[in-house]
Parts: sequence; C-alpha cells; structure tokens
Amino acid sequence: MFGLMQDHPLLISSLMEHAARHHGDTELVSRTIEGPIHRTDFRATHARSKRLANALERLGVGQGDRIATLAWNTYRHLEIYIAVAGIGAVCHTVNPRLFRDQIVYIINHAADRFVFFDLTFAPLVESLRGDCPGVKGWIALTEGAAPAGCLCYEDLLAAASERFDWPQFDERTAAALCYTSGTTGNPKGVLYSHRSTVLHTYAGGLADALAISARDVALPVVPMFHVNAWGIPYMCLMTGAKLVMPGAALDGKSLCALFDSEKVTFSAGVPTVWMGALQYLRESNRGFTSLKRVLIGGSACPPALMHALEEEHGIEVLHGWGMTEMSPVGTVSQIKGRHAALDGTDRRAVKCRQGRAIFGVDFKIVDGAGTELPWDGTTFGDLLVKGPWIASAYFNEPGSPLSHGWFPTGDVVTIDGDGYIKITDRSKDVIKSGGEWISSIDLENIAVAHPAVAEAAVIGVKHPKWDERPLLIVQKRPDADLTREDMLGFYAGKVAKWWVPDDVVFVDTLPHTATGKLLKTALRREFGDYRLPGS
Amino acid sequence: MFGLMQDHPLLISSLMEHAARHHGDTELVSRTIEGPIHRTDFRATHARSKRLANALERLGVGQGDRIATLAWNTYRHLEIYIAVAGIGAVCHTVNPRLFRDQIVYIINHAADRFVFFDLTFAPLVESLRGDCPGVKGWIALTEGAAPAGCLCYEDLLAAASERFDWPQFDERTAAALCYTSGTTGNPKGVLYSHRSTVLHTYAGGLADALAISARDVALPVVPMFHVNAWGIPYMCLMTGAKLVMPGAALDGKSLCALFDSEKVTFSAGVPTVWMGALQYLRESNRGFTSLKRVLIGGSACPPALMHALEEEHGIEVLHGWGMTEMSPVGTVSQIKGRHAALDGTDRRAVKCRQGRAIFGVDFKIVDGAGTELPWDGTTFGDLLVKGPWIASAYFNEPGSPLSHGWFPTGDVVTIDGDGYIKITDRSKDVIKSGGEWISSIDLENIAVAHPAVAEAAVIGVKHPKWDERPLLIVQKRPDADLTREDMLGFYAGKVAKWWVPDDVVFVDTLPHTATGKLLKTALRREFGDYRLPGS
Repeated sequence: MFGLMQDHPLLISSLMEHAARHHGDTELVSRTIEGPIHRTDFRATHARSKRLANALERLGVGQGDRIATLAWNTYRHLEIYIAVAGIGAVCHTVNPRLFRDQIVYIINHAADRFVFFDLTFAPLVESLRGDCPGVKGWIALTEGAAPAGCLCYEDLLAAASERFDWPQFDERTAAALCYTSGTTGNPKGVLYSHRSTVLHTYAGGLADALAISARDVALPVVPMFHVNAWGIPYMCLMTGAKLVMPGAALDGKSLCALFDSEKVTFSAGVPTVWMGALQYLRESNRGFTSLKRVLIGGSACPPALMHALEEEHGIEVLHGWGMTEMSPVGTVSQIKGRHAALDGTDRRAVKCRQGRAIFGVDFKIVDGAGTELPWDGTTFGDLLVKGPWIASAYFNEPGSPLSHGWFPTGDVVTIDGDGYIKITDRSKDVIKSGGEWISSIDLENIAVAHPAVAEAAVIGVKHPKWDERPLLIVQKRPDADLTREDMLGFYAGKVAKWWVPDDVVFVDTLPHTATGKLLKTALRREFGDYRLPGS
Repeated sequence: MFGLMQDHPLLISSLMEHAARHHGDTELVSRTIEGPIHRTDFRATHARSKRLANALERLGVGQGDRIATLAWNTYRHLEIYIAVAGIGAVCHTVNPRLFRDQIVYIINHAADRFVFFDLTFAPLVESLRGDCPGVKGWIALTEGAAPAGCLCYEDLLAAASERFDWPQFDERTAAALCYTSGTTGNPKGVLYSHRSTVLHTYAGGLADALAISARDVALPVVPMFHVNAWGIPYMCLMTGAKLVMPGAALDGKSLCALFDSEKVTFSAGVPTVWMGALQYLRESNRGFTSLKRVLIGGSACPPALMHALEEEHGIEVLHGWGMTEMSPVGTVSQIKGRHAALDGTDRRAVKCRQGRAIFGVDFKIVDGAGTELPWDGTTFGDLLVKGPWIASAYFNEPGSPLSHGWFPTGDVVTIDGDGYIKITDRSKDVIKSGGEWISSIDLENIAVAHPAVAEAAVIGVKHPKWDERPLLIVQKRPDADLTREDMLGFYAGKVAKWWVPDDVVFVDTLPHTATGKLLKTALRREFGDYRLPGS
C-alpha cells in the first residue's frame, strides 16, 4: 500500500524557484572578474536562469548533454548551475587549476558539448580548443567582446526570452559532474543526480550541519568548480541566505574586505584560506566585524588555526569532512549536548576530529578481512560509507568501487563512542605490520616536530617476517645535524615500540603533487625494495 | 541519463538506525502513565523496536496492515511508530479525545487489525470492542496485567528476539495514518509515506525551521496522536537530540517540573499549553530554568502570549502553521535578515504572522475564479499549497481534493512581500460581499474587544444586492448593557465602512464544537435566512 502524498520530484530548479518566490529580494553579490561588485537578487537570478535555459535549448542542448564550466564563484556560474541542470542537462564544473593535459582529458572524457569560461581562462581555452574537437562552442562569461571564435554569454541571454517553465522529470536524472584528481591514474567523474543534490542540501542545512538560515550572509570561498562549493549555493537558495561570491580574489585582504562590506556571517574554505585571512588581519591589526561561523574542510584543520579563530576572533569553527564522491559533506564536527559544559580546549579536542555523520550518511570501519571494528576511539580501520548522495560508480568507467554496497573512502580512521571520526591515514599509506596497522601520518607528525627536520615521509617497505615495516625518509633543515640514532631515539615514549621505524633515509628533497601534497607513490617506487637492517 | 549515486530509499527505520548508531546513548525519558520517570536511550529503543517488529510479524501483521494506537507520548509509543512503519505496516494514531462514535468510525474505516492502548484508555477500549469486530487484538501498553481479553505489550516483547533486519522497500510505501476531525462530515484519513515523513523531518530540522540539534533536549507537548507530534520525535532521531516524553500529565505544573528536571531546551504545543505553563509559573513565582525555544502552533498565537514568553521569560517563540494534510508543518515564523535589527515589538509583529514556507512547501493565494493574487500583505485569498509531504487524496475516499495539483487549505490568508502568511479567515466563513471579501475573524475580534461582549460570531447572510452581508451575533456579559447602535458604532474608524455588519443579534449562548471552537455551521443553519434591515 502506498502513501497518498503529492508526488513532486526533488529538482534543482525547485531550489531556484523557491528562492525566487519566497526570498525574491534576497541579495546575490559577486566580485566580478574585472573587480567591481555586482549586485542582483534571487528573483532576477531566476529570470536570468530561465533566459539561459531558453538560450541553451536554442543551442541544441538536450537532456543528458554535458556542459562544462571553467569559472570562478560568481552569479553567472550560479545561473549556469541552475539552467543546465534545470533543463535536464549536466553541469560539469572543471577545475582550472589542474594540469592542462588533465583538463583536455576530462573535457574529452565527459564529451562536453559547450564550455562556459571566465575571461581569466581565455588563454587556457585558446590552448585547449585544438585538443577538444567535441566541444561545439566556447562561451565567454562577459558582456564585452568574446575572444575570437567564442560566443558571448550576455549576448546569448539578451536574445533569449525569460519565459520558461522548468520541466519536471525523474529526480534520479543526472544534474552535475565533477572529476576527482587523485594522485594515481586518470581523473574519474562523479555524476550527481537532482535527488542526491537536494537531499544533500537538506542535510547540509540542518541545525547540526552548516545551519545556514535566512539571517545569514554566506560567502563560499571554496570554489564552485570544487564539488559544488560544498553545496553552499544550493543551501542559500533553500534557506534564503544572502549569497556573496568572491570571484577570483581569494587572498586574505580581498576576502576580509568583502566579509566586512557585505556583513558576511558564514564562510567556508580550506585551512590555507583561513591562515591567509588571519595573517592579513594580524598584519593590518584588524579583526572580523561580522563573521560568526566558518566551515573548514578539504584537509585537517590545524588545532592552532581553530584556536586562533575561536579564542582570538570569537568565530565558531565547524570542521567538516567529505569527498568528491560524497557530494561532498559526510561529517561535521558539531558538538553534542554532553560537550556543552567543556572548556574551550577540551571542546576543540572534540571539534578537531573530522566530525560525526549527518543523517543520510552512515559509515563503518573494517579491518583487512572486512570485519567491522569497534567505535572506541583507538581502533583504526578502513572507512566505508553509504548513503543517497554517495557515488555507486564513476562516469563512463567500468565496474563499481562499492564493496557489498559500501563505498571505500580510502581513509583509515578511528571512530569514538560518540560517532566522531578521526583520520589516521590514507589506506594505501598505512603500514601493515604483522597483522596490525601503523599510521604513517602519526609517525610523520612526530618526525617533523624534531627541530632538525624540514619534512618527513613514512612508507611501508617489504619485510620477510612482518610483511611491512615503516621506513622514515627525512629532509633535514639546511645545515642541521641529525643522525639515524637521534631520529629514532626521538620516538621513545611517543609511540609503542613496535611502531618505531626500522630505518631512516636522508634525502635532499621530497617529491610533491601539483597541489603540494607528498607524493608517496614516487617514494614507494624508489624505496619499496629498500633492504631494512636485520631483514 | 541518470546520476550514479547510491540508491537508498528514505525510510523511517533508517532514522531509528541512525539514532542508535550515531547517538546510541542519547537519552529518551518518559513520564509513564503510572507517574514515575522511565529512562532509556536510543540504542536500547532500537533494540526494543526490533523486538516489537518480530512480535508484530509473529502476530501476522503484514505490509500495509493498519495498526492503531490510543496512547500518550511515551517511549513505547515511539517504539510502535518505528516498528510498525519499519516492517511496512501503517501506524494509525487515533485521537482519544474524539467522541467515542468517531473513534469507532475511524477504527472501522481504517480496518485496523490491532490496537495498542495505554491503560488510561482501558475503559474506552472496553466500550469500543463490541463495535470494532475487525480488530484482531487489543494490546495494553503495560508490564503488568492486561485487561481481560487483551494482550500485554511487555509480554509480547519479552517473547520476541531483538535480532531483526529492517526490510528495504519503496519509500512511497505508506507508513502512518492520521484522521482529521473536521466540523462537518466524517473524519478523513491522511496516509503519510516513508518518503513524505523523512523529507518533512529534514525540512523541519533546518536551521530556519525547528532547528533541533544534538545539544537540544526536546519535549513535544503536542501529542503523538496529533499529526505525529508535529514530527518532533523523528527530528530527534535524525539529529540526536535528547527526547523527553510527558506522558499524560500536560498541566502547567507537571510540564514545568519536567522542563526543569530534564533540562529541556525546546518544546512545542498549542497556545493553551503555554498559557497553562505561564499561569503556573506566575502563581508559584518561578521561571523557566533551561527552556530556550518553543514552537507554538495548532491555532494562532495571541500576541500577549508571545510577549510574555519573550519579554518576561526570555524564550524564543517560533510560530508555526500546518495541517494534518501537511504532515503537518508548512510554515514557521523565523525572521529574515532584514528583521534582525527590529526591536522586540516590531519583530513580534512579524512573528505573530503564521510564518514563511520551508523548502518543499510552496503556496499561492487565489480569488474565487482561481486567479493568483499578489503578495502585498493586504490582498487576501484562498490559500493553496503543494509539496511532497502534502496530501493528494484521503484514505479510502473517492476523488481528490486537489485543484490543478494544489491542495486547498480552506484558509483565507494574506501573504506579504517576504512570503509570510497571515490567516484572515476560514474559506467557508469569509463573507463575500459584492465581489469583495470580508474577514469574519477581524469583525469578531473587534466585537470581543467591547467590554460588554462575552463572545461574538460573524456570519454571512444572503443579500439581494451584495450576495452576502455580515451579521454579528453577540453574547453579552452577564448584566451588561449593550444596544445594536452601540455595538455597530464601535466599528467606526476600525474597519472600512462597507465591512461594518448590517445587523446585530443578541443570543443567550453561542454553539461550540467538542474542542471549544465556535460552531458556525449551526449559526448558519439558524440565521442563514435572516432578513437584514434594508434588504
């Protein structure tokens, strides 16, 4: 027997329609690529999105077609989000910070039919065009002259009607596409649906998640080409929060100026964004004037950063964790009732974990044999996740990454009794020694605390008895003096004896990815057959 | 093209599973029918819900079967919510305050197979049994002896295993049933689905709706037999808020004692609940010690009540509006950013409206011809609503109440430019005079402000030129002196001249429904052909 409720699909166009009807004069403010501030509201944005929908249909864009963007956070990028998904096509946000060849691969793999781009990326587009023959048109996001051979966005809109009825279709229809940029292999595409997006928006808007309200002014520093700006633009449409888009100016000074002038109350970005903002405020002897709450994600929030924001600036810090494959939000480190009486230091110890699941996401940790492990805060295992906004497959890739219905995150974590996860390592980096696991990250953190160490990496190398044992690879500070014995002695009392690395290798420099992360695959290639003493 | 997201149905059992896994030791506290406090947590509640699921299957309950409750808010009622819906059956909450014959009608119309009841209702059950032959078993919610011929709840649970895997099924499956109790005709059943319930829970948990978090202690005064206690138990499972159930003791003194002892931060109920609590606090010269936020709904919140709670007690008042047919929440009177700078009085003027739509609900106002009317805060029209948790039909009733896909609420409202609705009248009570509408409620509110008036009703009576004109029916205070001319003169300057009633009738007493509302149908029967002066 079925319920007798009205049947409305969960569609992205409904978010825009709700914002226009119920929060029509809520502001949408953008710093343009050219610099000046652009002001509009949700009612006008809806009208322009409908113009764009008509323009797209006139260009021949149909259901399921992929339409790419190479663009900063601006009102135009939001219009593209809405119009492309709204007509049943797929908005493919391309990360312009990837290597050119990766971008070519991604555009061709996705078979993008049109590419919208900010003028910042005109030189990039010029270099891409010859290698992306499937793209039928390159559309410059400008009211001025488009580069030769490209279409002009504002001309397209001016020629289109603003009368358009959003089609109603199956909520499982694809809406957006975002490629991961792993350290190995080609990027892989995650294809979000309208259903997954709207459910993620509801969950993200809960009081224990991002808690965005119509009294907020939200500025997503996290780019719209990076997993839908963590869903924040959608949450603003759902709740009627004023939305401030920073364009291309993401340095501390520009952001703080925009925080102040637009009275921003909520913002979100990776830790380096906040370190940049704090450094600017310190140097200019200023503080935040309206900011109340920030979400930090993308990588672990250093405790010192959380301390500075909370204690020096009175900002409430939320720490989040997620993945491109998770739309992206999986956990938020909101405290529970039992933590309310803790003092700042103890409360931050809870909040520096990666948080607890928002409803819709479930997780578990398993050992190498797939057996579920306890939530005791110390046992660590592979983190598996499931839920309606988590990927089941990659776009146009064979097979499924799922294991018995669960998505393996590639993270090794502990989970405490309150359900807070703490990332210990990446699965491929954890060292499996005699059936037990050793965290490479914990060993690296100890090494870099030694004053003579500039940077350190720990990898597992083969061992005849223990399968793997940790090898520490160290780059010393210039002119520092450090012996193998000093270094290994430094671990005494800090970890269990069997965790201490078996050997130390000193190198002149460690390899990194384009985004500055340690490239352990290269280290494993170089040192995987390293002969440990006594093996 | 479809998205590549995992496919998980939105199920009520998932809410319980999430609470047990991620908030396992969060407390569920109930005042029992016998009086003492019962304490458990979400992990144990999940285990008992699984026992009950096994017990239900052993009783032969299958998908789609209706299982009724006559019960107060307690942990057992929550277990029934979860287990009945969890196995794919339908939890039919019966309002024990209805007339006995209505209850008989409802149980037979729903074809309930089992009825769970609190011992409070043992005499009622005894009187029902002969007239409800379809009920295969009556189950007393007790660990003691069940009344003769009835089953004992705790015996059933004790005999059942707590190993049970919740079945996964279509999220549009029926989950719960609640009958409306209109003033005319037989009660009609609203059949909620798992999908509608989970979406309503997400929307209700948004920061701009009820904003319940894991730091809250929530006490729903609104009964679980009244539209799922406005969804609050589900919201607590979703967010991990501590849940306090008041049992049968809903007087001011009992509630305030429970607020204090359990450190309740959020509560919800109809205005009379709050008037009772305030009166108790005033008489005992006390205040609230932990309560921060209350949701008031069910009928309009008197401004004086909101003032007292906010100004005297520092409680944040949320005003909500909804219907049984809306699961029930449609709007919440959370302020917008533009209202943040208003002082208390002006802010309360916004909040005394019935609120603005939460995402998922859309509405419009139309005139008698179905033409959409403007949102200007003064034009009033019939309110129509749509959304995935709004009814499209009634259980086992022919036809659909929908009008072009919209549900007619029966309310006449204004909508202002910010999307806040204000209820002006019921559609059937509004007076249609010469193509314009006159609010009977506005005219009644003016009349009762006259010191000589005890109670007043305004109805439309036939008029040869204007179709309808208002007739004022007044019950004077004992010994008060009031003439027709005094009464009509009292309207001068308070409403437009054409709104002033054409005549006044004085009566000894006005007719009421069982729940104390003015019974205008009886007045229309008596005075519908009243001959107005000059007509």
